[in-house]
Amino acid sequence: MNPLKLALIQLKVGANKAANLSNAKNLVLKASQNGANLIVLPECFNSPYGTQFFDQYAEVIDNSKHSETISALSSMAKEAKAYLIGGSIPEREASTGNLFNTSTVYDTRGNLIAKHRKIHLFDIDVPNKIRFIESEVLSPGNSTTSFDTPWGKIGLAICYDVRFPELAMLAARKDKVKLMVYPGAFNMTTGPLHWEALLRARAIDNQIFVAGCGPAQDLSASYHAWGHSTIVGPDGKVLSSCEFEETIVYADLDSKAIDEIRTSIPVYSQRRFDIYPDVSS
Amino acid sequence: MNPLKLALIQLKVGANKAANLSNAKNLVLKASQNGANLIVLPECFNSPYGTQFFDQYAEVIDNSKHSETISALSSMAKEAKAYLIGGSIPEREASTGNLFNTSTVYDTRGNLIAKHRKIHLFDIDVPNKIRFIESEVLSPGNSTTSFDTPWGKIGLAICYDVRFPELAMLAARKDKVKLMVYPGAFNMTTGPLHWEALLRARAIDNQIFVAGCGPAQDLSASYHAWGHSTIVGPDGKVLSSCEFEETIVYADLDSKAIDEIRTSIPVYSQRRFDIYPDVSS
Repeated sequence: MNPLKLALIQLKVGANKAANLSNAKNLVLKASQNGANLIVLPECFNSPYGTQFFDQYAEVIDNSKHSETISALSSMAKEAKAYLIGGSIPEREASTGNLFNTSTVYDTRGNLIAKHRKIHLFDIDVPNKIRFIESEVLSPGNSTTSFDTPWGKIGLAICYDVRFPELAMLAARKDKVKLMVYPGAFNMTTGPLHWEALLRARAIDNQIFVAGCGPAQDLSASYHAWGHSTIVGPDGKVLSSCEFEETIVYADLDSKAIDEIRTSIPVYSQRRFDIYPDVSS
Repeated sequence: MNPLKLALIQLKVGANKAANLSNAKNLVLKASQNGANLIVLPECFNSPYGTQFFDQYAEVIDNSKHSETISALSSMAKEAKAYLIGGSIPEREASTGNLFNTSTVYDTRGNLIAKHRKIHLFDIDVPNKIRFIESEVLSPGNSTTSFDTPWGKIGLAICYDVRFPELAMLAARKDKVKLMVYPGAFNMTTGPLHWEALLRARAIDNQIFVAGCGPAQDLSASYHAWGHSTIVGPDGKVLSSCEFEETIVYADLDSKAIDEIRTSIPVYSQRRFDIYPDVSS
């Protein structure tokens, strides 16, 4: 199996949805031209990140009749001939009108093959630093997500989901994913404190590749994103990262690295499920 | 509740058991004079770290008749008027002759109040870097360990146990520990790769204090320890650390910091045990 070339697009997101989609397309095609097989966009890539924006930017996701963003993402994947994780968008559920923070995934022919609704909503209140309560307008997802690629299974969760180690443990142990991807948008408080540490923790504990893809920082926006899109190897080393600017972060993911670390440090055969339960069982 | 002053003694361990005990005593008393309420020694502090040494240095742990090291640790705790986690020693089980890697804990009057036998034995083989197979001579422990102090409950595990996130998850959620302590002896391969990342991961995911206490590095020994004894706050920030030399690492642990981070980032009320099981239930 050839290595998977992963590209994280640290997109600069603005208030104009059409411009966001156009900008995303340009960078997705650029990543593809550079050989990427799997391309990732950041959380809320078609809308500013803020509870006041989600209703206005929300789209119904209907596989039989693609909305503006789903149609654009499907076309990008097809044109790029790459797997595409479309960051996330505000989704409106047709039957209830409820809003979700939702990531969609496309295969190389543009088929919508998976959808993840953020399970753990971002409700935090760090005094004098940041207050953000997604649950004021969003509903949570209720299931874990992984999808097949020729390279192996890939797990998907969104941003704040990364704080809950069970998702990556489940994905690695039950779904046997080789890579866990988190489109995210950490901020200037939680970013320097926890972003890289959390991505590395999920990689080290589960001996899988882990990627976190954030938007570029826009100091004119209400939410100052941390950026720092990062790819971590199954040994916990940062393979590739960046700072705040709009850019593409690449790494070649060779699944041999997973086999090597699991042979060297064989935690998969050493866990003591006689003493504690296995979250994946 | 006043903060707990924690002291990690990064002891230089040699081949002479009596000298190790005497050296440990001097530093335990020094930490006590500096106000420490809880003092921690490193893994295998009375013996060189190596499977070829464990049988020779092993002692039977019998609360009614203290062996050389247990007697010395009990006296140190009493004289220091501090709680003492006696790193670990090779233990010989009287009934079976089996050997364990065992940590003992003493209250301020020198009473032996807890004992942890390393659950996950250090069996790793990183080609051309390090091979170490504890299970060639040791048996594993079969239970988790925490103990009461006036400051709150404290969880205890040993070195390689830190690679298994369930132990800290259980301790934080079920036993409500405020601090997880790992006497350890990472090495020059796994130390730079994972030591700090693992300690920070356990702290961030569980929002508790975490401490890892290693021996000083001795380049004349067969096993080159990483040192870097480290105390991490419940927000994942490193509060205090060091490099390779014999030293004492101190930090004042204020349980208000736990309350603050759990209020700011309230993962304890956000976990989705409808989607994944709770390892502590």
